[in-house]
Amino acid sequence: MTTTVVLGAGMMGSAIAVPIADRGHEVRLVGSHLDEQVIDRLRVDGVHPDMDLELPSSIAFHQLDELEQAMDGAEVLVLGVSSAGVRWAGEQTAPFVRADLPVLSITKGIEFDGERLRILPDVLAESWPEAAREAVQPGAVVGPCIAGELVRRVPTSVVFTSRDADVVERLAEQFHTGYYHVRSSTDVVGLEVTAAMKNAYAMAIGFAAGLNEAAGNDPGSVAMHNHAAAVFAQASLEMRRIVELVGGETSLTAGLPGVGDLYVTCQGGRTSRLGRHLGLGKSLPEAIEAMDGATLEALEVIEVWSEALPVLTERGELRGDELPLLRHLSAMVSAGAELDVPFEAFYRDFAAPGVGAGV
Amino acid sequence: MTTTVVLGAGMMGSAIAVPIADRGHEVRLVGSHLDEQVIDRLRVDGVHPDMDLELPSSIAFHQLDELEQAMDGAEVLVLGVSSAGVRWAGEQTAPFVRADLPVLSITKGIEFDGERLRILPDVLAESWPEAAREAVQPGAVVGPCIAGELVRRVPTSVVFTSRDADVVERLAEQFHTGYYHVRSSTDVVGLEVTAAMKNAYAMAIGFAAGLNEAAGNDPGSVAMHNHAAAVFAQASLEMRRIVELVGGETSLTAGLPGVGDLYVTCQGGRTSRLGRHLGLGKSLPEAIEAMDGATLEALEVIEVWSEALPVLTERGELRGDELPLLRHLSAMVSAGAELDVPFEAFYRDFAAPGVGAGV
Repeated sequence: MTTTVVLGAGMMGSAIAVPIADRGHEVRLVGSHLDEQVIDRLRVDGVHPDMDLELPSSIAFHQLDELEQAMDGAEVLVLGVSSAGVRWAGEQTAPFVRADLPVLSITKGIEFDGERLRILPDVLAESWPEAAREAVQPGAVVGPCIAGELVRRVPTSVVFTSRDADVVERLAEQFHTGYYHVRSSTDVVGLEVTAAMKNAYAMAIGFAAGLNEAAGNDPGSVAMHNHAAAVFAQASLEMRRIVELVGGETSLTAGLPGVGDLYVTCQGGRTSRLGRHLGLGKSLPEAIEAMDGATLEALEVIEVWSEALPVLTERGELRGDELPLLRHLSAMVSAGAELDVPFEAFYRDFAAPGVGAGV
Repeated sequence: MTTTVVLGAGMMGSAIAVPIADRGHEVRLVGSHLDEQVIDRLRVDGVHPDMDLELPSSIAFHQLDELEQAMDGAEVLVLGVSSAGVRWAGEQTAPFVRADLPVLSITKGIEFDGERLRILPDVLAESWPEAAREAVQPGAVVGPCIAGELVRRVPTSVVFTSRDADVVERLAEQFHTGYYHVRSSTDVVGLEVTAAMKNAYAMAIGFAAGLNEAAGNDPGSVAMHNHAAAVFAQASLEMRRIVELVGGETSLTAGLPGVGDLYVTCQGGRTSRLGRHLGLGKSLPEAIEAMDGATLEALEVIEVWSEALPVLTERGELRGDELPLLRHLSAMVSAGAELDVPFEAFYRDFAAPGVGAGV
């Protein structure tokens, strides 16, 4: 049994606590300052109010001011805060980080510091004392995982990743269950970047639903799926190119962290709905307004690329005709361009491969 | 202007006639013996009865007994028959095949002759005179394309493929329009095999919808999408392995012909519905019964693999633990096994890649 602290009681933090508890580990779920009411409710009847689902009764629920107490004897630390809360989480956890305490983050996102793209586990570690930074390689959980489904024990497959192979292999072994299938990888940069990108691309795949409605058509098995599928294909190719750019393992985008995660993000969640609003012809501010204050990771990651694309292109690391879909999304989000998917610029690098020989 | 004959007035044959006609080419759409009533109706008011959509008025509609007349002066031949009709189409077209008449087939499927997997364009060519077989490399159209959407000019992206690079490049140039985006490739074996496989895998992705309903849950943005996405990811990886096995270009499965086509096939068409019936707990005969006589390409391709898998494994071309999803589908379809997706066997070859270096 491994004593595991999960910091952040939003939907994803609370969800990952479920397989860990089901596997028989001691789980202490600590809310952030934003989760006070969530923890209050969980203490009453174990129901997470944002999901209306009951968490395992073995989980202990703590308010943030009990973090120190919760960390006493902790053997694994899981961070379930939003991307905006990563630096906060780093500061909160700094007093407790030590060489024998593996850290897994479920936050997805990237930053651009003017020179380089940076993944959030590395941003997180910056808030830690130098000795901890050297001793702990913060890891991450990526792959297709809707929180409300994980709590309902829907079969779910993810990848644990960290530069420390021993740690992720051990955690994958400790935390997998009959419904939570965990693989491990050391390609933390490639996987984190892919996980962040899928939100941007899922928004673009969502355009088709809005365009279809705007054209007066009903949704259904014949709608504008050809449009969505063509964008999906280009998104897959661009994710692979981006992973290559950051020195990651491109074969991974063909599986869970790339197309698997992209597929699940297209299934009607907030990112799809944002894309639909834009497809309906709303301006970006109107579309944001229609989302009622939901966190819009897609826009965050596109804004990062609006800064990074010109720099990487200027430095010659990207050709100007590469990533045409991402460039269009950047023009929409950062320069107010109208939605006009550049299909003619798609699939250019993949047009003329060799001849298949046959078995 | 290129005079183009399309043989087969089913939904896909009729649909591909639309961009060709819109581009200004002369199109002669010739029904098979199964399309007599379709052609009758098209001659009355141009409406395709199975899609309830009007085709361009410039298209000439012909019954099969007018094939010889329609072929007079033909410069391109497009075959829009079902996979069951490929040999028939080969016999019908044999008198007309000549070196300067490119042939494009939109039929998807593979066969196994006990030794080798074979693609339908090659099966087609067998019915032709030897001189024609040497002179003409029959090509194919692959990629995400719902017929009813193409007729409505929904943006659609496909790949034309043939071993003859000049021919497919020329046809791609001649037939693309502002809404029909065409790339070309010479990897006809890899692309045709991928196009056939996507039906089998889309059926498996459809299991989740039925399992979700069987569990008493509603469809929605929280359902069993984690399950579907995990199967999608494994399907993507298995398609890549299969393309490698047949000597094709594996990078193509990351784009239109692989994940793009798989995505579109998961959007509620007949293959998804068949998977849903199986997920609901129906036996295969019950599921087939519920499909009201629809053509079920997924079952055809799985049956081919039920023959091929043991032979290829025995010959050492596949390890016994490779393609676990396809092996399970084969066990279900050919041996009556119960649905039980083998998640634990998934992603095994893709678990431990290198470390990303960062930009």
